[in-house]
Amino acid sequence: MHIPSLIEKKRDGRSLTHAEIKALIDGFTSGKIPDYQMSALAMAIYFSGMSNDETTSLTRAMLESGDSLDYPSKGTRRVVDKHSTGGIGDKVSLVLAPLLACDTELIIPMISGRGLGITGGTLDKLESIPGFNVNLSKEAALAQIDKTGVVMMGQTADIAPADKKLYALRDVTATVPSQPLIVASIMSKKLAESLDHLVLDVKFGSGAFMQTEAEALSLGTAMQEVGEMMGVKTQVAYNPMNQPLGHTVGNALEVSEAITTLRGGGPDDLVNITLDLAVKLSNQPRTRLNEWLTKGNAYAKFLEIVEQQGGSPEQMEKFSDLHTARIKKDLKATASGNIKCVDAAAAGRASLQLGAGRQRADDDIDFSVGLSNIRKVGERINAGEPLLTVHAASPECADAACIKLDSAIRIE
Amino acid sequence: MHIPSLIEKKRDGRSLTHAEIKALIDGFTSGKIPDYQMSALAMAIYFSGMSNDETTSLTRAMLESGDSLDYPSKGTRRVVDKHSTGGIGDKVSLVLAPLLACDTELIIPMISGRGLGITGGTLDKLESIPGFNVNLSKEAALAQIDKTGVVMMGQTADIAPADKKLYALRDVTATVPSQPLIVASIMSKKLAESLDHLVLDVKFGSGAFMQTEAEALSLGTAMQEVGEMMGVKTQVAYNPMNQPLGHTVGNALEVSEAITTLRGGGPDDLVNITLDLAVKLSNQPRTRLNEWLTKGNAYAKFLEIVEQQGGSPEQMEKFSDLHTARIKKDLKATASGNIKCVDAAAAGRASLQLGAGRQRADDDIDFSVGLSNIRKVGERINAGEPLLTVHAASPECADAACIKLDSAIRIE
Repeated sequence: MHIPSLIEKKRDGRSLTHAEIKALIDGFTSGKIPDYQMSALAMAIYFSGMSNDETTSLTRAMLESGDSLDYPSKGTRRVVDKHSTGGIGDKVSLVLAPLLACDTELIIPMISGRGLGITGGTLDKLESIPGFNVNLSKEAALAQIDKTGVVMMGQTADIAPADKKLYALRDVTATVPSQPLIVASIMSKKLAESLDHLVLDVKFGSGAFMQTEAEALSLGTAMQEVGEMMGVKTQVAYNPMNQPLGHTVGNALEVSEAITTLRGGGPDDLVNITLDLAVKLSNQPRTRLNEWLTKGNAYAKFLEIVEQQGGSPEQMEKFSDLHTARIKKDLKATASGNIKCVDAAAAGRASLQLGAGRQRADDDIDFSVGLSNIRKVGERINAGEPLLTVHAASPECADAACIKLDSAIRIE
Repeated sequence: MHIPSLIEKKRDGRSLTHAEIKALIDGFTSGKIPDYQMSALAMAIYFSGMSNDETTSLTRAMLESGDSLDYPSKGTRRVVDKHSTGGIGDKVSLVLAPLLACDTELIIPMISGRGLGITGGTLDKLESIPGFNVNLSKEAALAQIDKTGVVMMGQTADIAPADKKLYALRDVTATVPSQPLIVASIMSKKLAESLDHLVLDVKFGSGAFMQTEAEALSLGTAMQEVGEMMGVKTQVAYNPMNQPLGHTVGNALEVSEAITTLRGGGPDDLVNITLDLAVKLSNQPRTRLNEWLTKGNAYAKFLEIVEQQGGSPEQMEKFSDLHTARIKKDLKATASGNIKCVDAAAAGRASLQLGAGRQRADDDIDFSVGLSNIRKVGERINAGEPLLTVHAASPECADAACIKLDSAIRIE
């Protein structure tokens, strides 16, 4: 195939065939098609878009560039997972995976990512558990699934190498925010889990990748379409992300809150989103799922995962003592009234600047820092009471965070 | 500078500053900015366009990536040149350069290109003159200008290396047809001639790069704007290109016709366009310029150029005998009437397929093949009279050309 003609075709708004897209992705992955042609194509896709058929072909080609999970002893169990487009304080995966694993009819091969920018990542949060290994081989992952029905891990090198290479190129050529490229990137990795059922948790609002509900709907619909076209039952939940989820933002702080939730004491918003997603993915009634949270089943499953993946279940009881930031400082309300707004994006930025996140993919992160005791929109507060607690590595960092957060919270 | 942010800026339709464009071109030329970022930027420019200011900055940055000609003994003479956007049978440069050189107030540093696709190139035509050397160093070119006031040569490696590198990249990433990139490519090379006055011959129609007069106007205006902003008097002539210029298409055949024209016997359309451009560039009246054509001055200057650049002036008298195609075949009119159309694009394609042009930049060309005696639109013809003569390397090639050309000529 003549590659410039294919770039021209997409540039001019015409559709690429499945064979053409397959040849482009295979050639790019093997190195036969150079980066400079693929980046020009990515920019043409940014402007010209892709049909659902093309996006599905792209997803399939990227999926087929690597390996997929298979489950020799699957039996009649269904393989399920959720994907979230990321939000501030979103620790749903940490609760949902062990909760779903209480259902012996399910297999949950949860492959997650790392945080970048203001959004945290499940892998980073898990790594705040001493000894927890997220870098499992395919064999180790399958062995654990045989024992516990669930694994929480990072992408292996064998999964969608085309996506890894293409994402790195998009990152340096201003072609990340292209919906078909986003959809294919997410779905090629998720579908490598050989799922029967996928639920997408698409966030929208100030703290989300998608700022408006309309954008979220567009992305969610496109992902659903691709999932269904590839034979996977795919559902979408749309959740606003204007205030942080739960009361914490930051790696170890979020794991603490997840443990509290797994022991039945979670905040309403986190519990509700988790149960909403769990109801979609399992055939269990909501009451039973809630019981698993409040009666210790989900927590027991969580301890099992921790033990299987190298952590110490005994440490989980007192997990919050394992990571203590040098400085804890309360941000106090300067007026009394009802909390009208706790800006999620501002909370995310504060947490990032405290050191909980990464500006660049190779930055180090500090597990102990972040925000806790974040009050929720609608709550009544009196002047002088704490709005949240900042966990910081230095007094200067704590002060800087307080100044920024003060203007991000509105009391009326 | 953060290159992805600059690509993003252009992608989102915002203007790049002069400093940003300069940094992009310098970084690209030195290799610090990789091809994959420049090709994504080129595609973003394709979609988002560039203002005249940006195009001028791009032209200047590409010009400054290399060397410019200078004329130590210029005195009061004006440095002039024309650029044509290319057409079928366009041998104007071959006549115009020696004609202008008859005017001792002018310096004509004519740097030309090679043919690609259906469009021929002045350098290829000149090389059909045995011994003629178009690959002059800057020093050799200036020495010749000192002697004769004119040189006809190819781009040296020192001129606009950024353009050379960018054009090669655009060629393989479907980013050639972007007006600001076209303008900057043309103008950076032309302005490296350190011109006082440039005339642009912008062709439009079936045999031209620009299909419509509106497209031609848009390109011409943009080039004029850049030229003027860079302090060079710049004029544009718009010329239709629906039938071939003159009676010949093909390298040696066109040189023959140019020689005929330089000796006062040229076809009206070629003579008129040449005089139109010469009147713009020199301060001489049209009558004097025409005299130089009809009285031998321009031809003498041509012989001087041929001698200076390694050819033999004695051979020029019988030039048409130097290249004889194996087969000459007349295409005969099947009906009587007035010629309504001689499709320039079809003539260009036929000539290309006969071997006179290049499909790819490294193809060999055959100087002897092409079309001659092409009749003009408006002429009366009788059935059985020749419409044109095909010069071919084999009977099969001649027959194939005749079949294609037959449908390209309309008689009413």
